[in-house]
Amino acid sequence: MKVVVWNEYIHEKCEDAVKKVYPEGIHGQLKRVLEQEGVEVTTATLDDPECGLSEEVLKQTDVLLWWGHVGHKHVPDEIVDRVQRAVLGGMGLIVLHSGHNSKIFHRLMGTSCSLKWREGARERVWTIQPNHPIAEGVDETFVLSDEEMYGERFDVPSPDEVVFLGWFQSGEVFRSGCTWTRGHGRIFYFQPGHECYPTYYDENVKRILRNAVKWACPIRKGLSIECQQFMPLEE
Amino acid sequence: MKVVVWNEYIHEKCEDAVKKVYPEGIHGQLKRVLEQEGVEVTTATLDDPECGLSEEVLKQTDVLLWWGHVGHKHVPDEIVDRVQRAVLGGMGLIVLHSGHNSKIFHRLMGTSCSLKWREGARERVWTIQPNHPIAEGVDETFVLSDEEMYGERFDVPSPDEVVFLGWFQSGEVFRSGCTWTRGHGRIFYFQPGHECYPTYYDENVKRILRNAVKWACPIRKGLSIECQQFMPLEE
Amino acid sequence: MKVVVWNEYIHEKCEDAVKKVYPEGIHGQLKRVLEQEGVEVTTATLDDPECGLSEEVLKQTDVLLWWGHVGHKHVPDEIVDRVQRAVLGGMGLIVLHSGHNSKIFHRLMGTSCSLKWREGARERVWTIQPNHPIAEGVDETFVLSDEEMYGERFDVPSPDEVVFLGWFQSGEVFRSGCTWTRGHGRIFYFQPGHECYPTYYDENVKRILRNAVKWACPIRKGLSIECQQFMPLEE
Amino acid sequence: MKVVVWNEYIHEKCEDAVKKVYPEGIHGQLKRVLEQEGVEVTTATLDDPECGLSEEVLKQTDVLLWWGHVGHKHVPDEIVDRVQRAVLGGMGLIVLHSGHNSKIFHRLMGTSCSLKWREGARERVWTIQPNHPIAEGVDETFVLSDEEMYGERFDVPSPDEVVFLGWFQSGEVFRSGCTWTRGHGRIFYFQPGHECYPTYYDENVKRILRNAVKWACPIRKGLSIECQQFMPLEE
Repeated sequence: MKVVVWNEYIHEKCEDAVKKVYPEGIHGQLKRVLEQEGVEVTTATLDDPECGLSEEVLKQTDVLLWWGHVGHKHVPDEIVDRVQRAVLGGMGLIVLHSGHNSKIFHRLMGTSCSLKWREGARERVWTIQPNHPIAEGVDETFVLSDEEMYGERFDVPSPDEVVFLGWFQSGEVFRSGCTWTRGHGRIFYFQPGHECYPTYYDENVKRILRNAVKWACPIRKGLSIECQQFMPLEE
Repeated sequence: MKVVVWNEYIHEKCEDAVKKVYPEGIHGQLKRVLEQEGVEVTTATLDDPECGLSEEVLKQTDVLLWWGHVGHKHVPDEIVDRVQRAVLGGMGLIVLHSGHNSKIFHRLMGTSCSLKWREGARERVWTIQPNHPIAEGVDETFVLSDEEMYGERFDVPSPDEVVFLGWFQSGEVFRSGCTWTRGHGRIFYFQPGHECYPTYYDENVKRILRNAVKWACPIRKGLSIECQQFMPLEE
Repeated sequence: MKVVVWNEYIHEKCEDAVKKVYPEGIHGQLKRVLEQEGVEVTTATLDDPECGLSEEVLKQTDVLLWWGHVGHKHVPDEIVDRVQRAVLGGMGLIVLHSGHNSKIFHRLMGTSCSLKWREGARERVWTIQPNHPIAEGVDETFVLSDEEMYGERFDVPSPDEVVFLGWFQSGEVFRSGCTWTRGHGRIFYFQPGHECYPTYYDENVKRILRNAVKWACPIRKGLSIECQQFMPLEE
Repeated sequence: MKVVVWNEYIHEKCEDAVKKVYPEGIHGQLKRVLEQEGVEVTTATLDDPECGLSEEVLKQTDVLLWWGHVGHKHVPDEIVDRVQRAVLGGMGLIVLHSGHNSKIFHRLMGTSCSLKWREGARERVWTIQPNHPIAEGVDETFVLSDEEMYGERFDVPSPDEVVFLGWFQSGEVFRSGCTWTRGHGRIFYFQPGHECYPTYYDENVKRILRNAVKWACPIRKGLSIECQQFMPLEE
């Protein structure tokens, strides 16, 4: 299985607080997490030629992870078109935290993906579908003592499955782990993962990401999504 | 309730066969059908300024119907943006037949909306959710002796509800009447309605369209779809 | 529209604390709430002949509300069969609070409907689908300072729609307002409503119940749910 | 993985036409099909003690297949209770053809599961979710020249996923392959499989059944489905 971790890689280069948490970039930590499962992981960032997402790369990618925040608007539309086509053709996509506002997530959801937010929150995550592949081995509930609050209403189409719900001490709730299918591709959105907090070192979070990659891996890829004039079948 | 029927209005002006079926344009016939229910109906076409869909018009519209085919690419992206925002804010949208390939439907679905097709088909429609508001008074099954075959796989996100299934004599099936919610807006796609056939004069089809307009009418409109920095609530 | 409020009516007769909150029984207060919308409301209780739910009564009922707790097992199976058939044929059903463990809810869900619970909790309800008919006029969020905590995992089939999410100060979350369709009938489950607390006097809760009754009212009733040997249709 | 194929095993013992198609019983053929994938398969029938489904057997079963028709009412309710508990706790269940009217399927669906039917039909199956694990390696469309017609409306709760649609030459359509989750267990219903026709020898059908068994295999089993008085968590 070939996985690409995409990260805009901006905060880590200019903010000491973030650099301290993720000295190799968020993508570096995610690569480390996912490699432990024996999958082949590469990374790509906003500054790479074609954002590191050439047609060649996407053709070979089974699952793409996406972390972005302040650089959303700098991802060229043609790259977004390309990633969307890959997902519709079967590639898995895992959108992380502030990636809810990425062009590619907006494109695939068709909605604003808006939400409420506030930095500095205590979150409790609840696993409400413990028999879902993404929840394998994950605790029934776990606490992230420092996260960003993301609160409902989360403006996304009704998910196929809500696997995790988030509770915030300050009074908010969130559908924190959701799945959708678009075209032939599987999509998972996972809310925790603010750049200032060590969320991607948490054991339950790591487990969830490893599971998600396996879950999103396509059975078939490069499936056609073209209209077809169709002759009656001989029987 | 204020309804706008949008039609690209191209076939009817240059093809005699179509003009004969819809002398006042497809929008003219749809207006006639919907007015019988006492709702206020206006029409808009591709050639109107701003496609007849100014901010002012959309603000006052409860439900928009969309018929397009060969002119999809001529609808400016800014109009599509505007209609999408209106739907996400609560406006109902009814997409008809070849409108499956319109920019606005692609935008809201996030998928290719591709399908199989062939002109000249006999279709049998089955009402599989007879207690759905859109199926009120509609026969359990009815035949359209001349329609265009639209066959699966229809590349759309799993509908909230499949109200009608289509059977084609030549061996194909189709999810012919489907609903989705996007943002705060309700969307209904209905497959029958090729420009060469008198589908919009059929009693069951007319009933379905009248029902759909009532079903799609928003409870609230112009709802916010912006992200919001949110302070903890006093309790 | 004809509505029947069913209440086991046990707590209110033997517990002073409950009697004080609901001197006319929970059904009495619910009747009062729903009558304000101009619908015809009657009540039925466990001690009535046939639990007040004769075939005759059910045939005329559009929507049935169900409140039960300690008396679940005393509802005869034949009454449960009868109510199930009525729902499948189109009657609306609104299941309240501890009714999650009623025979009729178990029967229609096919699952255990189990959950976590603890008396004495502060709940914040979030409206996550503000354009849903059941949410019409309901605040985006409201607090019930005294409720019973009901926590996930709530063992029900994935709802058609999750309209409300509940947040509890003690760290739990719940899908507090959910809809399902079973057969031709619409079902709404609403979590708040413990017998010791004045929940059914809350303005938002009252609004939700009135909306739910309208939403659950069938378009058609007494629809067949029998298998049918079916001859090919003449075309 | 441990699979149990349950078959009422009645037709094959008393009807020559059926015996000719399935000399070792339908369960015999299904066992043969599934063993080819390397899973451990045993069989159980109505005449076995406890229908072959003791607590001991179910505890060790990952996926249960169910074929029944004329013997539905002879399955004791306590066996149905037991199988339901096993499914809710995580066991996979695959319900075949006339099993739509089995007690266990009715129990888990909560609906009548009624449909239209007629013997002697030509069916074309369409794979509408080709990237679903159950569709792996299955043709886009395939014909069963002899099957029983099962037509909509199929009175089941909206499936999580409709993987296959069936087209019948006589004018009917059917959601022929559907999935649901109930409790922690995954359920797949597959419509083809009348006792008089060699459906379970068809290459596409065999592939579907092998895929379905893998898909339904639980990640965790014997999960609790009891209500739980829950104390606030120390944080």
